[in-house]
Amino acid sequence: VTPRNSRLVAEDRWELHPQLVADTAAVGDLPLCRVLLMDDANYSWLILVPRRPDVVEVLDLSASERAVLMEEVAQAADALRAITACDKLNIAALGNVVSQLHVHVIARFRSDLAWPRPVWGVAPARRHTPAELAGVLASLREALPLAG
Amino acid sequence: VTPRNSRLVAEDRWELHPQLVADTAAVGDLPLCRVLLMDDANYSWLILVPRRPDVVEVLDLSASERAVLMEEVAQAADALRAITACDKLNIAALGNVVSQLHVHVIARFRSDLAWPRPVWGVAPARRHTPAELAGVLASLREALPLAG
Repeated sequence: VTPRNSRLVAEDRWELHPQLVADTAAVGDLPLCRVLLMDDANYSWLILVPRRPDVVEVLDLSASERAVLMEEVAQAADALRAITACDKLNIAALGNVVSQLHVHVIARFRSDLAWPRPVWGVAPARRHTPAELAGVLASLREALPLAG
Repeated sequence: VTPRNSRLVAEDRWELHPQLVADTAAVGDLPLCRVLLMDDANYSWLILVPRRPDVVEVLDLSASERAVLMEEVAQAADALRAITACDKLNIAALGNVVSQLHVHVIARFRSDLAWPRPVWGVAPARRHTPAELAGVLASLREALPLAG
């Protein structure tokens, strides 16, 4: 088994956590991460999930996977900022509720519901309408260097 | 001016934000970051601050600085977990209040004050006693690969 094959096998065993499936819409895949849009129109909020099984902490990734994760987080942040012209980016790996490693990348505005607090737990999610969702996903897919 | 010299000049212009000075105790320096202990005995909480001037977002660092930041965050997380045997690590770069780029690395327990919520804004900081502070700093300095 070559390293390349073992990586493919690992990716094959990976599944997105059902809570993340329920709360998000899929944007697409970067080389390491599935990129998700949080289905909460109160914010412009991406979640990046490395497609590796059994990963809870960034410490469970290899150093080279962590380097790729950092660059994919930076690409997501750059895309969000370009699309939204936000005042600040918030980046976080928490995982107290959903343990599968996932990194939040959130565009923040001085005028948003939670500012200057972190967004978690401040307001119930407001689902995107189908038209909103289609528009946001199209912008993100144009701004991100997705596979395929 | 060689790249090395320009890096040293940049580091020379860097100053820790006064709010971070007020809220923390210095643990020491990794190659890129100043490592700080949040002076809140409710949690085991480190803050890493890249010693580079005028940096607000991770996007303001170069890709190679971001890679170093990620590995220093991993070292801090590994040290905290080794010392505390925590249930989860929380890692976040928010900066809505203090804009100087700083990364929170927090050891979380199912029994802590804020669990499973993020720690920000849940309870007022409880300052360490001098004896507590000396003990925590000694453990951290032993666990981290600090300069000097």
